[in-house]
Amino acid sequence: MFYTLDILGTMAFAISGTLTAINKRFDPFGVFIISFVTAVGGGTLRDVLIGRTPVSWMQDLNYVYAIIGATIFTILIRKRIDYLSTSLFLFDTIGLGIFTIIGTEIGIQQNLHPIISVALGVISATFGGVIRDILCNEIPIIFHKEIYASACIVGAITFLVLSNYNITININYVITSLIVITIRLIAVKFKLSLPTFIENK
Amino acid sequence: MFYTLDILGTMAFAISGTLTAINKRFDPFGVFIISFVTAVGGGTLRDVLIGRTPVSWMQDLNYVYAIIGATIFTILIRKRIDYLSTSLFLFDTIGLGIFTIIGTEIGIQQNLHPIISVALGVISATFGGVIRDILCNEIPIIFHKEIYASACIVGAITFLVLSNYNITININYVITSLIVITIRLIAVKFKLSLPTFIENK
Amino acid sequence: MFYTLDILGTMAFAISGTLTAINKRFDPFGVFIISFVTAVGGGTLRDVLIGRTPVSWMQDLNYVYAIIGATIFTILIRKRIDYLSTSLFLFDTIGLGIFTIIGTEIGIQQNLHPIISVALGVISATFGGVIRDILCNEIPIIFHKEIYASACIVGAITFLVLSNYNITININYVITSLIVITIRLIAVKFKLSLPTFIENK
Repeated sequence: MFYTLDILGTMAFAISGTLTAINKRFDPFGVFIISFVTAVGGGTLRDVLIGRTPVSWMQDLNYVYAIIGATIFTILIRKRIDYLSTSLFLFDTIGLGIFTIIGTEIGIQQNLHPIISVALGVISATFGGVIRDILCNEIPIIFHKEIYASACIVGAITFLVLSNYNITININYVITSLIVITIRLIAVKFKLSLPTFIENK
Repeated sequence: MFYTLDILGTMAFAISGTLTAINKRFDPFGVFIISFVTAVGGGTLRDVLIGRTPVSWMQDLNYVYAIIGATIFTILIRKRIDYLSTSLFLFDTIGLGIFTIIGTEIGIQQNLHPIISVALGVISATFGGVIRDILCNEIPIIFHKEIYASACIVGAITFLVLSNYNITININYVITSLIVITIRLIAVKFKLSLPTFIENK
Repeated sequence: MFYTLDILGTMAFAISGTLTAINKRFDPFGVFIISFVTAVGGGTLRDVLIGRTPVSWMQDLNYVYAIIGATIFTILIRKRIDYLSTSLFLFDTIGLGIFTIIGTEIGIQQNLHPIISVALGVISATFGGVIRDILCNEIPIIFHKEIYASACIVGAITFLVLSNYNITININYVITSLIVITIRLIAVKFKLSLPTFIENK
């Protein structure tokens, strides 16, 4: 089930990348690259930083197929994507939760310090979007809008804390994912975002 | 001969980087960095992704000398570069063909899946230009203009297919390079580019 | 003493990143990421390029604490930061000198060619700022303003040359740092910058 959710999260990130690139009028190659980078960018950066190479997507083609499928699907139904935006948001949020857990767990496995493991969880979940925005010449959205990364940080810390108790890993997965997803849902529902340090005039 | 072409391709990419940076009014250090990054960026990203470190240009100084030479040469003749634009375009296209083959071949050597090997070929050939454009704060040109990456993809697939037949590697090199170069020449000659998914109004 | 200066340099870079991000109206998460990336970006890129993973800051938490401390401190005193700009500039310049030496020395230790070692020194010292500027969607400042990277290059070469003489490493550290710092101080004092290749009209 976890693997299935991981693939679903990857596809959701690919869909969000595809939509961004279409709006930027990229050609099909550009659309595919942005889709791919959004989906695997965070995990790739994580793998490169800890020396886990060749990076993950090179060793499990299912991710590549999932991304290609999601990209073609999105291109075909692009005019009706509005009707799907709720499911898209849901998958994206699920992806966020799953990717946070995967990154944090890899940090633990590699015997890295808990703080570093949390950082790896956040990098896995958010840097795909950061690289997408940089390639599209935008300021990364997560630096100035919405509770997004904060949800990952809370989730990663919860995951770490629960790992130290006598809880089966699957229950830990479920609890942590639900926390990330809930925070994000509440934040979007009530349009919450973190304050900045410059007063608006 | 292959090594010579590789160096020529590197120099062509360095020249194109130098010209871009001069136009952006970068200082000499900035010009050199952009030149360097354009020339080695694709291969460096490929090496980092598969864990082939220290990355190639750190282990063969000839690339570094070639880039320094090409950069100084371009700075000196910058006012007459228009007369050279045909040769520049030719070298750049040769570089594209060569870099595609090198990346794809490294993927095969590392026992990576053919799809991943094609991806490595395309990354080697195109990401130098992508990083150049990002450092210059532009949307990467290959995402929205001209048949460029598509030529690499066709070339990389041809190379892979021919590798499975009883063809000597040198003939494979020549055929594949010629295919990449021909597609690119035709595309530029007839101003072909891939369509985007948003209708122009 | 060297380690202390290294930490001070890291904090100075973190402060400069924090100030940049606050001015861009990033939220607290964005501010922290930019602070972190500015402080460790150069060393991280160096480590990834030579395959020294997990990258340094994952293995010495003191850097992480120093960055967190510097970021919070800067946020708290942000309205009075002008009074501190001289000390900030001094720390930043010290960081520049130290990071150049550390990068160059790592290159020597890994038996890389002197030219590559100089490149590693410059990458360590300057690419944190480059990545900061890219994430903030600006053209990297070091490509078009002030003698900055040039000071690193001179420092790295001096360090290499002195390493071949019968000089204790600590004296070499001091001399090299002082050279980088002096060049930078003179450049800023007299507003020196390298010329570009396009005539201003």
